[in-house]
Amino acid sequence: MITPWEVSEELDYKKTMENFGIKTIKNIINNIETPHKFFKRGIIFGHRDFDKIIKCIMENKEFSVVSGMMPSGKMHFGHKMVIDQLLYYQNIGGSIYIPIADLEAYWARNMDFETTKNLAIEEYITNYIALGLNPNKINIYLQSKNETVKDLAMKLSKKVNFSEMKGIYGFGGETNIGHIFAPIVQVGDILYPQIDKNKKMLTVVPVGIDQDPHIRLTRDIANRATKSKEFNFIPPSSTYHRFITGLTGGKMSSSKPETAIFLSDIPSKSLRKKIMSCKTGGRETLEEQKKLGGIPENCAVYELFVYHLIDDDNELKEIYNSCTNGELTCGSCKKNCYEKLTAFLNDFKEKREVAKEIAKDIL
Amino acid sequence: MITPWEVSEELDYKKTMENFGIKTIKNIINNIETPHKFFKRGIIFGHRDFDKIIKCIMENKEFSVVSGMMPSGKMHFGHKMVIDQLLYYQNIGGSIYIPIADLEAYWARNMDFETTKNLAIEEYITNYIALGLNPNKINIYLQSKNETVKDLAMKLSKKVNFSEMKGIYGFGGETNIGHIFAPIVQVGDILYPQIDKNKKMLTVVPVGIDQDPHIRLTRDIANRATKSKEFNFIPPSSTYHRFITGLTGGKMSSSKPETAIFLSDIPSKSLRKKIMSCKTGGRETLEEQKKLGGIPENCAVYELFVYHLIDDDNELKEIYNSCTNGELTCGSCKKNCYEKLTAFLNDFKEKREVAKEIAKDIL
Repeated sequence: MITPWEVSEELDYKKTMENFGIKTIKNIINNIETPHKFFKRGIIFGHRDFDKIIKCIMENKEFSVVSGMMPSGKMHFGHKMVIDQLLYYQNIGGSIYIPIADLEAYWARNMDFETTKNLAIEEYITNYIALGLNPNKINIYLQSKNETVKDLAMKLSKKVNFSEMKGIYGFGGETNIGHIFAPIVQVGDILYPQIDKNKKMLTVVPVGIDQDPHIRLTRDIANRATKSKEFNFIPPSSTYHRFITGLTGGKMSSSKPETAIFLSDIPSKSLRKKIMSCKTGGRETLEEQKKLGGIPENCAVYELFVYHLIDDDNELKEIYNSCTNGELTCGSCKKNCYEKLTAFLNDFKEKREVAKEIAKDIL
Repeated sequence: MITPWEVSEELDYKKTMENFGIKTIKNIINNIETPHKFFKRGIIFGHRDFDKIIKCIMENKEFSVVSGMMPSGKMHFGHKMVIDQLLYYQNIGGSIYIPIADLEAYWARNMDFETTKNLAIEEYITNYIALGLNPNKINIYLQSKNETVKDLAMKLSKKVNFSEMKGIYGFGGETNIGHIFAPIVQVGDILYPQIDKNKKMLTVVPVGIDQDPHIRLTRDIANRATKSKEFNFIPPSSTYHRFITGLTGGKMSSSKPETAIFLSDIPSKSLRKKIMSCKTGGRETLEEQKKLGGIPENCAVYELFVYHLIDDDNELKEIYNSCTNGELTCGSCKKNCYEKLTAFLNDFKEKREVAKEIAKDIL
C-alpha cells in the first residue's frame, strides 16, 4: 500500500524478504535527516546494510552509489524513479557510478558496441543529465572500455563456479561463455568504487527486488575475495524499490507504448488521450464513486502523483482523502494529472536540449 | 618409428589423425628448402593447413608462430624441442608470439600473478633466449597485461557455448568461471597476431597431439567470428610433434627428476649416473646384443641423439646401423651420449648467464 504517511510492505514481497534476509526499511529511515519521498512513501521498502550508509550520510563520510544501465529503447517514468534516487544521493554527497553494460548487451542481447554506446549517449545519459545529475561528478563508463573493471571481473571469476551461476541465472549448455561471464562483470562494476578510490568505502546499490540475486552473488564474492586475502572488500549495501505500475494496469514497458510515459514524450492530443483512458481506482458508476469513494491503491494516476508528479505530502494526502471519501471524480483527477505532466514534460524538453550537447562529450 | 631417413606415423596416432582430419606431414615437407631435422626425423608428423605456411616460406611472405607457455617448475629437454621449432621459424622469417598464460595459471592452478611472472622470466624466458631466440624479435607478453588479447577473448566468448566447452574440456558444475573462460583467452592468443598486425596473416601453432582440441576450437571460433562479419580471420595452421621419452621409459616430467634432463643441469657424477642407468634398447646379455643387435626405437639414449644431441644425419645413421647390427654396446653409446650432453650443458650454462640479464628487461 502506497500512502504518503505510512510505510508498509506488500505481502507478496514479504516472503521473498524473509527468505533472503532483506530487512524492511521503515525502521531506520527516521534516522535520515532529509529522507527522499520514496522512503517515506514506501516505494523503497527493503534493504541490506543500509543502516551503514545512513551512518555515512550522518557523519558526512564518503560513500558510493552504483547503478548500471543496459540501454534498450526509450526511457520512461519507470526508469526515472531510479535516476531520482541517484540525484538524491548525489545531492547529499554520494559518489555516483554508472556502468553502461555494453558487454552484457553484446553477450546476452546480441547488441553491437557502437549501437549500445550511441543509445546510451543520445537517450540515457541525456536524460540522466536533464534530470539533474551533475555530469562533472558522475563516474560513467562503458564496461568494455574499463580495464580495471574487466581485470577485476577476471580475477573474481575464479571465486564462483558453474553450478552457482546455473542456480542463480538458469544458465544451461546452450548459454554462450560470454553470457555466463556477464554477471561477474556486473559484480566487478559494483565493487569497482572500492578499487577506484583505493580505500574502504561503503557502496549502496538501489535495485528492484528481482535484482537481489545479483546483490547476493556480489556480497558472496566480495566475502570470498576478502577471505582469500586477495582483496579487502566491504560487501555492498542495497535498497529495494517497487516499480511504478503501467498506465493500463500491468508493467510499464518500453515495448508497450500504451503502458508508458516516455521522458521524450511531448504534450499532445494522443498523450492526453493516454492519460484520460488509463486505469484508475474509480468505481463503475459516478453514483457508486460518490457513495463508496475511489481506491487510490489501484490507480495508475495516483501512482504517477506518488512517484513523480507531487512532491508535497499534504497535496498528495488531500487527493487521497478526497478520492476515498467520494468527492473527487476520476475525470477531474486525470485532467489534473495531465496538466502536471504537461508542465513537467515542457520543462524537461528544454533541459533535454541542453543535456544532449553535454552528453555527447561525456564518454 | 623414429629414423633419420624415413618419416612414418605411429599407429596409435593414426586413428586420432584420421578422426580429426589431421594430415600426415611427410607428403609436403619436401617442398621446404631447408626442413628442420624434426620434419625429416618424423618428430613432427602431422599438420593442418601447413602447406599454406610452406607456401609463405617459399614466397617470403610474412607469417606468425604462436607458442604459449604456462610456467611450472624447471624446463627440461621435452620443452627444448618446442623452442627449437620457434628458433627454426624465427630464422626463416616467422614472427614469434609467446603468450605467458598467467591468467590460466591463476584460474586453473591457483598460481598468483607475481609467481608466474617471476618463474617466466627467471626460467622460461632465460632459456628461450639462451637457446637462440632473438629477444628483440619475439612478441612475448603476459595474458593478464595484454588488453587486446583480453578484449578479443571477451568478444570471442560469445561464439561458443557451455556444452561445447564441457565436451572438449570436461568442465562441470564445480569448474570456476575463470577456468571455463581460460581456453577462450588461449584462442585469443592464437588469433592475436592477425589483430596485432591488422592484416590477414597466416599463423602456425606447433603442438603435441593432445593439444589438438584447442586447435579445433580456435579454428571453429575463427570461422564463426568471420562468418558473423565481426572479424576476418584465417583459421590457424598447426603441426603435431611427438614428445621425447623420459630417461626411465615413460614421460619426461619436471615432477619426476629421474625421467628428465633439465636445461639448468650441470655435468656431475649424479647426472652421469642418470644417463648411464637410463632405459635403452639393449638386449639382456652382451652375447644376445652382438647376435641380434639393439633396438634404437626403444632407446632413450637414441632419442636424445635424434631430438637434441646429433644434427648430422650421417652420424645418426651410423649409430643406428652399428647398434642394430650388434657392433655398438650400450655402455659406450651412453658414454658418448654423456659426453655430448656435457658439451651442450657447459656451453648452455654460459649462454644462460648472458640470457638471464636480458630476460629481466623483456616484460
